[in-house]
Amino acid sequence: MAKPNNILFIMCDQLRWDYLSCNGHPSLQTPHIDSLAARGVNFTRAYVQSPVCGPSRMSFYTGRYMRSHGSNWNRFPLRIGEPTLGDALAPLGVRTALVGKTHMAADSQGMARLGIDPDSRLGVIASECGFEPYERDDGLHPGPSRPRPAYDEYLRRLGFEAENPWEHWANSGGDAEALLNGWLLSHADKPARIPEEHSETPYMTRRAMDFIGETAQEGRPWCLHLSYIKPHWPYIVPAPYHAMYGPNHLLPVVRDDAERADPHPVLRAFQDFRVSRNFSRDEVRARVLPAYMGLIKQIDDQIGVLMRFLEARGELATTTIVFTSDHGDYLGDHWLGEKDLFHECSVRVPMIVADPSPAADATRGTACDALVEAIDLAPTFVEAFGGTVANHVMEGRSLLPLLRGERPAWRGAVFSEYDYAPQEAREALGQPVDQSRLFMVFDGRWKYIHAAGFRPMLYDLASDPNEFHDLGADPARADERARMKDMLLSWALRDHNRITMSDVRIRGYSRAGQLRSGHLIGYWDEAELALARKEAGLE
Amino acid sequence: MAKPNNILFIMCDQLRWDYLSCNGHPSLQTPHIDSLAARGVNFTRAYVQSPVCGPSRMSFYTGRYMRSHGSNWNRFPLRIGEPTLGDALAPLGVRTALVGKTHMAADSQGMARLGIDPDSRLGVIASECGFEPYERDDGLHPGPSRPRPAYDEYLRRLGFEAENPWEHWANSGGDAEALLNGWLLSHADKPARIPEEHSETPYMTRRAMDFIGETAQEGRPWCLHLSYIKPHWPYIVPAPYHAMYGPNHLLPVVRDDAERADPHPVLRAFQDFRVSRNFSRDEVRARVLPAYMGLIKQIDDQIGVLMRFLEARGELATTTIVFTSDHGDYLGDHWLGEKDLFHECSVRVPMIVADPSPAADATRGTACDALVEAIDLAPTFVEAFGGTVANHVMEGRSLLPLLRGERPAWRGAVFSEYDYAPQEAREALGQPVDQSRLFMVFDGRWKYIHAAGFRPMLYDLASDPNEFHDLGADPARADERARMKDMLLSWALRDHNRITMSDVRIRGYSRAGQLRSGHLIGYWDEAELALARKEAGLE
Repeated sequence: MAKPNNILFIMCDQLRWDYLSCNGHPSLQTPHIDSLAARGVNFTRAYVQSPVCGPSRMSFYTGRYMRSHGSNWNRFPLRIGEPTLGDALAPLGVRTALVGKTHMAADSQGMARLGIDPDSRLGVIASECGFEPYERDDGLHPGPSRPRPAYDEYLRRLGFEAENPWEHWANSGGDAEALLNGWLLSHADKPARIPEEHSETPYMTRRAMDFIGETAQEGRPWCLHLSYIKPHWPYIVPAPYHAMYGPNHLLPVVRDDAERADPHPVLRAFQDFRVSRNFSRDEVRARVLPAYMGLIKQIDDQIGVLMRFLEARGELATTTIVFTSDHGDYLGDHWLGEKDLFHECSVRVPMIVADPSPAADATRGTACDALVEAIDLAPTFVEAFGGTVANHVMEGRSLLPLLRGERPAWRGAVFSEYDYAPQEAREALGQPVDQSRLFMVFDGRWKYIHAAGFRPMLYDLASDPNEFHDLGADPARADERARMKDMLLSWALRDHNRITMSDVRIRGYSRAGQLRSGHLIGYWDEAELALARKEAGLE
Repeated sequence: MAKPNNILFIMCDQLRWDYLSCNGHPSLQTPHIDSLAARGVNFTRAYVQSPVCGPSRMSFYTGRYMRSHGSNWNRFPLRIGEPTLGDALAPLGVRTALVGKTHMAADSQGMARLGIDPDSRLGVIASECGFEPYERDDGLHPGPSRPRPAYDEYLRRLGFEAENPWEHWANSGGDAEALLNGWLLSHADKPARIPEEHSETPYMTRRAMDFIGETAQEGRPWCLHLSYIKPHWPYIVPAPYHAMYGPNHLLPVVRDDAERADPHPVLRAFQDFRVSRNFSRDEVRARVLPAYMGLIKQIDDQIGVLMRFLEARGELATTTIVFTSDHGDYLGDHWLGEKDLFHECSVRVPMIVADPSPAADATRGTACDALVEAIDLAPTFVEAFGGTVANHVMEGRSLLPLLRGERPAWRGAVFSEYDYAPQEAREALGQPVDQSRLFMVFDGRWKYIHAAGFRPMLYDLASDPNEFHDLGADPARADERARMKDMLLSWALRDHNRITMSDVRIRGYSRAGQLRSGHLIGYWDEAELALARKEAGLE
């Protein structure tokens, strides 16, 4: 068998599916990402398991739905013992490492309960959801309990001194006289106060190249998660990217007055967020979108750097490259900002897999419209390294058959979840913590959203591709809602916690095994038992 | 505050709710258990979370539904890190120990993955689902991978030599000439080949008394799980209990030809089991029921021994005594043997809580018909020892308010589950492993059973208390089914894996906290930010 390819698993943060030229953006050219698509498969209907960083990522990193891994929101610790991609790749000899962001919080209470030292090798990896933290950097203002990222030290060595160099230099605008807070949307048109080469995206790209060079010397197969913080907030980018795009380059806003006329209470609560009100102003979009696009353009250029690096080393032919995002960004569409809900611009992500294996030649440069979920990547990686997917643990499906041009029977719907308990919407809606939950079922046409405590929402993307018209209360659509609710029930009853016992072992249970164990349940007398033993081939 | 009572948590195995005189059995007198009911509260509508030993017990021991703890069947390991009653009581200084059966299997793979030595103190307790194994004995023919129980050594010391003394002497009939296999129902009328005082029930009772005496000297509070294997199979009991009951003492069989006319496919598959066919024969019932009753009578006598022991030590006034069972036994009712399904004789259990505290005086000797679940005991124990129940972990509700005569708003339905994947029914029905699942919702009148892949079952216990008539396909009951299905969906969508983050902490999330963290999402400019900080009381 040919040596399996290494895997370079690139993730952006908050990158909409449609902000790439290969996905149709008319004015944002992303030739390097496009070239990945040209060399691989562009999965055009890929959905995340929760449209917010933390839980979405924990699903990517475990291959499990949010309700299975239980890390419902940013920095809700992933419980100790929850099986990760890294756990699955370790027995295959793969070095599974991280450069960049995971949004993971360690389950320190759980580790203490099980006597696991967080500073031991096992504790460190468990604290990083299965990744060896070659370079961990969530790219947000670090809280007091977290170690400062190495990027801060890097900036300091270059003379960019500050209590928080990440924020002060790399994510602020202005000059020595006036520091302009990069979190504030009004400053999105300013260049970041740092030369481009020292900003986060090129820095992380170099760190990825460091890892690849180092690991190649070891001769071990590797799976590197290169996880860019951008184009996530703060929306600020260094020159020259801050000035590349102007009013003529912006996609028109996708919104309709119908969406504000009598919205579902949950949608209304999110429309009432400050970020939604601000992004509903044209002035804000005009200020922010060019920065958002510039950040993407910078990433695309760095992907180019990385591809040239791999090519020069001859590793482009032995590396499977995956490009995706943890969720999208409303940017004012639907009178919303940020992510959180289930419109396409939020829950749908770019997903490109470029597999250089000959087996994938048949699909090279094609698009695939199968309904794909974020949880499909982890099992894909396990299979790509020659492992067997533990389907009682991972809930996604390997994409390898699709990459190889097979047409397997595929899932009929994708699922996504959102827990708004940590947000102001919970209080605004008067919901208990454990009832602040949303569930999306999307079958490729109908998008059904179950909202605990409220009527559902329903959109027909065939007749209403922009998702303007909520049919959740339309009597004419009762049958569709009932059908989607049944799909939700079947999904909700999934057997997702039976992780210690595989389907294969269960299928091995037999009458002969029971007879051998001596648990002789149900036999009347010796004759009946003897006959059963004979029938089971035991005598 | 008064010193909390110790807790003696007694469980029988396979004891039907109605085989106690305090629950109405006309010919089986259980005065010692009845006296517990007279001193406490008899919960007359208590239901287990799965009508089979292993998963039912894991729910008792974790306070979590089966689909939450994931140990779906006997000896499916409870995943490492799953929080147990013992974990919750440890910080309260309580010694939580086991004498008898748990049906636990250790998650050795998970422990290896987390570097936990199974022989360390932590590993041993995790392997026993949170209990210190003062005496572990599942009372079944030990498999090759398990250590022989101490009871075997006890028998050997008394001269009862055999490869498997438990089976050979304590659970067989016959004499030196002819050994009669106690697993075979035809031998249920024979006395076990052992003097009564050396049989399992008195032995385990003495071991419980050993523990209590020892722990009293330590001065630590304790929670002892005394877990009798009986009246579970093998149905064989030593003299004189083998001969106490005859044909005149038997409850009439509860079955109707309607149940066999056109049964639901799942019910039919269980009726086809060997054990069901045998128990459907009157001859079998006549042979087995007296032994079953004798085993219960022996337990009752041993409860008497235990109560006299506690009384003599002055500990009856400081010990809360709980008496229950892990599930019932069909014994031929509904043309079924064993347990597994959701008729009352299988899923409903006796549950008595005798709390000597003055606070419980108001309810002493009363019955309570609140819908109680097995998972309610663990939180009850936590509260009884002065702890606070972590409601993001434990899914049951403390019974203390009910014991104190309060009338809190209570749950409207109980839930139970069954996974028949390891059984012959799966193959007979052609179901995939992960679709061999049954779910019961019972609201006190309507019992709804969701069967993946089949129509539901529905019983109206008001008009049909014997559960003979399945209304699962009755067009007139579509509304009831829809209502119950909605209850199932709400339950299925429970947030049962978010165990690292409490509701209390989530309620503490605030705009001020976000402002303090520096994640300034959604602000346009300095003026807007300053106003928000002022409004949040930050300046």
